Amino acid sequence: MTATPDDHVSREVDVVVVGAGLAGLATAWRLHQAGVDVVVLEAKDRVGGRLLTTTTSLGVPVDAGGSWVGPSQDAVMALLNELGIDLVPQYTDGLNLMRVGNRTHRYHGETPPLGAAELLDLGQAQWALDRMARRLGPPPWHDRYAHRLDAQTFGGWMDRCVHTAVGRLILDGATAVSFGCRPEELSLLAFVAHIGGAGGLTPLLDVREALRFRIAGGAATLPAHLERKLRDRVLLGHPVDRIRRTGDAAVVTVHGRGSFRARRVVIAVDPATAHTIAHDPPLPAARAELQRRWLMGSAVKAHLVYDLPWWRDLGLTGAASIDSGIAHLTFDVSPPASPGADGPGVLMAFLELPDAGDPCRDSVSLRRQRVLDDLAALFGPQARCPEDYTEQDWTAEPWQSGCVPCPPPGVLGTRHQWLTHPVGPLHWAGAETSYVWEGHMDGAVRSAQRAGAEVLTALGHPAVTAP
Amino acid sequence: MTATPDDHVSREVDVVVVGAGLAGLATAWRLHQAGVDVVVLEAKDRVGGRLLTTTTSLGVPVDAGGSWVGPSQDAVMALLNELGIDLVPQYTDGLNLMRVGNRTHRYHGETPPLGAAELLDLGQAQWALDRMARRLGPPPWHDRYAHRLDAQTFGGWMDRCVHTAVGRLILDGATAVSFGCRPEELSLLAFVAHIGGAGGLTPLLDVREALRFRIAGGAATLPAHLERKLRDRVLLGHPVDRIRRTGDAAVVTVHGRGSFRARRVVIAVDPATAHTIAHDPPLPAARAELQRRWLMGSAVKAHLVYDLPWWRDLGLTGAASIDSGIAHLTFDVSPPASPGADGPGVLMAFLELPDAGDPCRDSVSLRRQRVLDDLAALFGPQARCPEDYTEQDWTAEPWQSGCVPCPPPGVLGTRHQWLTHPVGPLHWAGAETSYVWEGHMDGAVRSAQRAGAEVLTALGHPAVTAP
Repeated sequence: MTATPDDHVSREVDVVVVGAGLAGLATAWRLHQAGVDVVVLEAKDRVGGRLLTTTTSLGVPVDAGGSWVGPSQDAVMALLNELGIDLVPQYTDGLNLMRVGNRTHRYHGETPPLGAAELLDLGQAQWALDRMARRLGPPPWHDRYAHRLDAQTFGGWMDRCVHTAVGRLILDGATAVSFGCRPEELSLLAFVAHIGGAGGLTPLLDVREALRFRIAGGAATLPAHLERKLRDRVLLGHPVDRIRRTGDAAVVTVHGRGSFRARRVVIAVDPATAHTIAHDPPLPAARAELQRRWLMGSAVKAHLVYDLPWWRDLGLTGAASIDSGIAHLTFDVSPPASPGADGPGVLMAFLELPDAGDPCRDSVSLRRQRVLDDLAALFGPQARCPEDYTEQDWTAEPWQSGCVPCPPPGVLGTRHQWLTHPVGPLHWAGAETSYVWEGHMDGAVRSAQRAGAEVLTALGHPAVTAP
Repeated sequence: MTATPDDHVSREVDVVVVGAGLAGLATAWRLHQAGVDVVVLEAKDRVGGRLLTTTTSLGVPVDAGGSWVGPSQDAVMALLNELGIDLVPQYTDGLNLMRVGNRTHRYHGETPPLGAAELLDLGQAQWALDRMARRLGPPPWHDRYAHRLDAQTFGGWMDRCVHTAVGRLILDGATAVSFGCRPEELSLLAFVAHIGGAGGLTPLLDVREALRFRIAGGAATLPAHLERKLRDRVLLGHPVDRIRRTGDAAVVTVHGRGSFRARRVVIAVDPATAHTIAHDPPLPAARAELQRRWLMGSAVKAHLVYDLPWWRDLGLTGAASIDSGIAHLTFDVSPPASPGADGPGVLMAFLELPDAGDPCRDSVSLRRQRVLDDLAALFGPQARCPEDYTEQDWTAEPWQSGCVPCPPPGVLGTRHQWLTHPVGPLHWAGAETSYVWEGHMDGAVRSAQRAGAEVLTALGHPAVTAP
């Protein structure tokens, strides 16, 4: 093999981490604390990956990507505590809304005021899902049962097992939030494993659990803190395009920027994004197929900024769900009020884009109008006049395949162990590699603990302790 | 917008066709015959796409990709006739084999010697599939029914509706051949539409229909003929990386080779490969999602070359199926015997790669050994000593996302019309855009007829006739 110009090794390190999202930064931070010489290569000109805090035209910070953490997510809670980062409790003081058909229900707490048929339907669905999750358990999975679940979509299961509009509404909403896709696009195995890793369906849907806190200043505060700790070990604008494995080391080539030789490499990007990296020799077929078939969800988050959180004065929490329209789920994500000021008020809406052919599919201004219609139907006419409206479409973000994992059927069943299985000197991190709180910040931090321990063991490092 | 060096328009034509597979070449040929100034841009250094005839080390031509045509595929049959290309009948003189458990069954014709339970099971499955296909019909589909099918995998449907090992074996084989994937990876809608477009399940499985003829000299003869007719209008080594739409025209940029301005563009590559082209302005969201979520199957075809087609002397056709191992389906694909010579004999095997963790997944030599074991179990010890063994892995082919379409659930249900829906001056061709014989050569030629007619209409061409 002849050397290409990019094969020139410009730097030798112990470990290269590919990707400066939360998983990559937390891995590098753990290794750096243990005295390992590590460098993080990030394609974009910012850290944080799917943790992105943008500022609206009115100067209000909003979380365009991941946002919430909860008390049972102890890995990320410990890291936030270690870094001295404050949390903002989710506002829950008042009534939630649920609109089904043309009727809006107002209710306290977690349980909507449902009829007996709906309560029974939802209870049975939850019981069945939790039972499947317990039977599946954490990996390694019993192959036959995992395969059976992986041959179905969550939507197909719902077609058979969920019989009321409200039951469907709640589970459609859970799918949109956790997977950024419609239930008929998602493997039933992925849904069942996801709720298993969260300790059941209730913690995932309960504002007191998965949605308890936001991060003060925005979620991007967390990766920004880690970047500051790692200083010049994080190299932005460094897209990795090739990794050559040679014996017990690897040469990582960055497009137009030369190469890095490392004893170990941690690839801390989602499997679909990892698929853009060429490997020499090629990856094992099963890992390559896992990457090729992986899909990331394409949720769109919209933020509506008002001068005041006026819904609070109406006795509403801002949390609402609706079975039609495109703004299927909303939450109050207002920043904490400054002393002496009451505003601003921010509503976040998860959008489910309409089917092809609907003109608002491709027009932000038409879509904005439709979102305002939905919110006015829920909250009243005051919702119609936000001072700012912003959207974040994660599929349009460069070096990012989407915001949350949504594996279709047939991907995980036979290949799930390849999410974490090292390939020579390559290790894998990322929120989708963790069974516990997969796809959440907590899963990302747990994956960093695992990958970091793997690397320290491989390097024969004395500081290694079991994860 | 500032002009980049690639924005320099090096050539103006009526129509640019992207991709010199069968669909692209047939589109260009139709337009050229109508007097339209057309150029075909092909990324690879060869034409033919998934029609690729390779030569084994012994000089025997074998079809690494698409191979068969049948009498009811009248679009491709008419084109072959127009170009004066000969056909080779599939060898069917003798007994077929089916190995289930440790027992090999020998039988004439299409129907294996099954027990009553198996016949009933298979008959019911076929009846149910054909009924679904009739109810679905050709697009435009009734949304609710298409969605319901698209929320299921074909494997999940089989788990519920197919109860015998033989029934499963036959439908697994049909999935491997037509979609290059396992049934649990495939949308039930895709399978049902596929058999609908073939006129039912029987024509797809029947050697007298879909597998009746091969093309003399190999399938690549067909694109090679079209390339010769189009002469210097086919530009190889021209990968398109960007298309800018301006009013009623488009500028097609080829990496490092400048740009082509055209009144119309026909993109004649599969949706997954089309996803690698950037668009300015961006494509409509539904078309972009269709491309992003599309998957191509990853079948591997192996060819075993022997000095003679010795199985014929044993009274066997060379057609066999087996419910274990990795060579799930075989056919005799020997070239026609030259006068005075009996050889060579060639067996083709569709491989279903084993699960991750199996060492033969990543080792060609181990895999070869396993294929020889499978073939020896079917045909006897003579199968163990081929003079040559070759494999074609379509996922490893550059500028090619796989060999056959295998859309997972949730892709086609809401987006199928975007397979063909023009976007301004952009039109779409390719075997997966045709309902009739989708994924086959015939579907590719039909798509060329449709796309060609669309373009001629758009250009206001007098020669246009309804497709």
